[in-house]
Amino acid sequence: MNFSIVFYILGWILRFEAAFLLLPTVVGFCYTERREAVSYLITALACLVLGVLLGRRKSKNFQLYAREGFTSVALGWIVISLMGALPFVIAGDIPNYVDALFETISGFTTTGASILSDVEALSHASLFWRSFTHWIGGMGVFVFIMAILPLMGGSTMNLMRAESPGPSVSKLVPRAKDTAKILYELYIGITLAEIILLCLCGLNLFDSMTTTFGTVGTGGFGTYNDSLGSFSPAAQNVVTLFMILSGINYSFYFCLLMRQFKNAFSIEEVRWYLAIIFGAVAIILIDTHDMYSGLEESSRHAFFQVASIITTTGFSTVDFDLWPQLSKTVLVILMFIGACAGSTGGGIKVSRILLLFKTIRKELSTMIHPRLVKKIKMDQRNVPDEVIRSTNVFIAIYSAILFVSLLLIGVDELDFTTNFTAVAATLNNIGPGLELVGPTRNYSVYSSFSKFVLMFDMLAGRLELFPMLILLVPSNWRKY
Amino acid sequence: MNFSIVFYILGWILRFEAAFLLLPTVVGFCYTERREAVSYLITALACLVLGVLLGRRKSKNFQLYAREGFTSVALGWIVISLMGALPFVIAGDIPNYVDALFETISGFTTTGASILSDVEALSHASLFWRSFTHWIGGMGVFVFIMAILPLMGGSTMNLMRAESPGPSVSKLVPRAKDTAKILYELYIGITLAEIILLCLCGLNLFDSMTTTFGTVGTGGFGTYNDSLGSFSPAAQNVVTLFMILSGINYSFYFCLLMRQFKNAFSIEEVRWYLAIIFGAVAIILIDTHDMYSGLEESSRHAFFQVASIITTTGFSTVDFDLWPQLSKTVLVILMFIGACAGSTGGGIKVSRILLLFKTIRKELSTMIHPRLVKKIKMDQRNVPDEVIRSTNVFIAIYSAILFVSLLLIGVDELDFTTNFTAVAATLNNIGPGLELVGPTRNYSVYSSFSKFVLMFDMLAGRLELFPMLILLVPSNWRKY
Repeated sequence: MNFSIVFYILGWILRFEAAFLLLPTVVGFCYTERREAVSYLITALACLVLGVLLGRRKSKNFQLYAREGFTSVALGWIVISLMGALPFVIAGDIPNYVDALFETISGFTTTGASILSDVEALSHASLFWRSFTHWIGGMGVFVFIMAILPLMGGSTMNLMRAESPGPSVSKLVPRAKDTAKILYELYIGITLAEIILLCLCGLNLFDSMTTTFGTVGTGGFGTYNDSLGSFSPAAQNVVTLFMILSGINYSFYFCLLMRQFKNAFSIEEVRWYLAIIFGAVAIILIDTHDMYSGLEESSRHAFFQVASIITTTGFSTVDFDLWPQLSKTVLVILMFIGACAGSTGGGIKVSRILLLFKTIRKELSTMIHPRLVKKIKMDQRNVPDEVIRSTNVFIAIYSAILFVSLLLIGVDELDFTTNFTAVAATLNNIGPGLELVGPTRNYSVYSSFSKFVLMFDMLAGRLELFPMLILLVPSNWRKY
Repeated sequence: MNFSIVFYILGWILRFEAAFLLLPTVVGFCYTERREAVSYLITALACLVLGVLLGRRKSKNFQLYAREGFTSVALGWIVISLMGALPFVIAGDIPNYVDALFETISGFTTTGASILSDVEALSHASLFWRSFTHWIGGMGVFVFIMAILPLMGGSTMNLMRAESPGPSVSKLVPRAKDTAKILYELYIGITLAEIILLCLCGLNLFDSMTTTFGTVGTGGFGTYNDSLGSFSPAAQNVVTLFMILSGINYSFYFCLLMRQFKNAFSIEEVRWYLAIIFGAVAIILIDTHDMYSGLEESSRHAFFQVASIITTTGFSTVDFDLWPQLSKTVLVILMFIGACAGSTGGGIKVSRILLLFKTIRKELSTMIHPRLVKKIKMDQRNVPDEVIRSTNVFIAIYSAILFVSLLLIGVDELDFTTNFTAVAATLNNIGPGLELVGPTRNYSVYSSFSKFVLMFDMLAGRLELFPMLILLVPSNWRKY
């Protein structure tokens, strides 16, 4: 392990966080929340000092190998969470540091799982910071995709191709830096569009901004205890639309920008993503038709909840834990499917699910016609064997983490549905689960030990499993 | 599809079933259950007639390709179940044919999931047949492995190697037929040993035989409503011992027979299997220590239930649905791990779980040291890449079946824990789950539609997924 390079990267991440922390400081002063504003200012200064100290010594050997890349990413997310949790404690909004850390990791990983039973009691500064972590986290996904993944060559480049089998993200334009710029511009453009539309729907600027941060980052922290239940139908529909848009592979938008409309609409992942959404809504509409007054209300709630879960956002307009079991099962399955690769959403990703079913079909057809050599295709192109392999390995590791977590949080003796959906909702970066962690409940029912397990799951889910696992391997820490 | 060869094989399977059906006929006459005895006799005759008709025309081209092999196996299990369910209906023990079919498939697949709320009301003939199907089903695994798989070469041989990474089953002795003979002798030897021991513990011959069939076939149908709860502690411990023995890879016994003691005890899968059992018992002992009077009772129940679930038998001595959540979570995880490959038990299999963790370790180490070429080893030998691949594909397909089944039985609107453990308990061939399908409950809560889904899962689990899936592929049925 080349520690100096890791420290150097961490130093830069902390300096960025210092800058980000100035925004809630400003919000605090605007709402005359002096104590809270000062908490954020102090933390910003602490981040700056620590960042300058860590990033002072630039390594002579600046070759970033895979292990340094993965380790920096994982430690980076941990360090910004450790620092980002401080103002909640200093301001007194979340007195317990473990709880504050849970909330912050949940924010940066765009999960949206909360330990708070009364979010309305929070200061504006903290509510803003809480939602803003989603926006930073969502942006961080692109940093991750663009800056770290290509460094690893070999299997990981293939993994990346597996995730964006449409026009490959890394090839949008020749230079990675330029691609990142386009992605950021798209991200900021979508953000501004939603803020403006929500303001037009009658929300004030603060609510519009926080809700938008939660939507485009596919996070899910709300600023009201009933999430988005009290918003006007129009505002709810705007959020539904932007959740669905945020779950789409960003290369779709890139194709649109380049006026390659045919390419854009032929991306298999996007078509299946939309098909799954409409299929799930249809089942839920039939299942819940007698719970609401009329088709407008039923379909509004069905679309909202389906979009919220499949994009792993986690907002809610109704308590879907009260829905009949079939609808709840549909939601649990959507939790695992997740959004498109190359979006800010989490979960296993539609493209991996697609590859999985294509693999099954291929295996069966090989069994029936042993001499037939069949290649798995995606978007009319052959998928390399290495991609299939890494997809299968991903799903296998994913299942292992799921069951080990389930066992570990079992010590709290809560019921099986709660535990299962809690792990599913954190590992897939959704937020709410069912029963005791349902949309009207929160994660404060768990012990500190279980909270740490779930924090690990949130980070593992967000960073596509490997960076967090590598931290647990002793030989990763050995010096060269 | 070469139909004549499939019909020929089905004809032979039915003739064997006719012979097997004579046993419950004899039992019925012994207990002067005339009506029941006649039902079994009629069915035996029907099987014989049908068997002779189907197997009359021997195909000229007797080359058994993969698709004919898989199709014959899957259809074989379906046909013997369709016929084997008849006497339950004719005798009036289970008037509904769908229920009778569920019970029979559950028997042949050695699952042990029942739709009966009062098994003690059944006739002796039907109780005997019900347990005997377990014994036939347990033996059938070896028929399947030895008689069908070696004919297919290529990928299926590799699949088989994946399942028995210890001393390869096919290589016990040079000829497959001889290996099958040795396995049958072992199976019959273990069966006789348990019957004798249970008789010595004070059980009558009928109970000893039916319990033994359920144990060595890792089935789990009991002849009392409280399963084995009313048996003496000594008898319960004998069953625990034989459940554990039946879940061990049979090549372990073969090594013992050949006096290769060092080889036998160095089989990694067997060592991990025992380690998992002791680990699970330790957790449950700590978790349930205040529920029973003293260590003897606690450890007897803990060992019994752990052995029953990991070997996918499904007997119970206590209602483990009343255990605290941690213990229940341990049992749910054991459901998925399952027994050793090359045993009569179901589940994912310890060797696949081992390979899974070895794959994770290798992936991580490749990430840390990209230039290090590391091979995955099992029992000091390199595991071929093809085996790793098929293991990963297996787990991926397995997850897909799990979630699709969960969605389908969701239409019955039962709670999530019931549905999840029902699918887990049938796909892994265990029997009881938790909540509404817990050890004191039964599967009659489900609709006929869901019962068919669960029947499919039982067959898919027993036949290692592929043979059942291949039935669903239209091109499998096309003539050459």
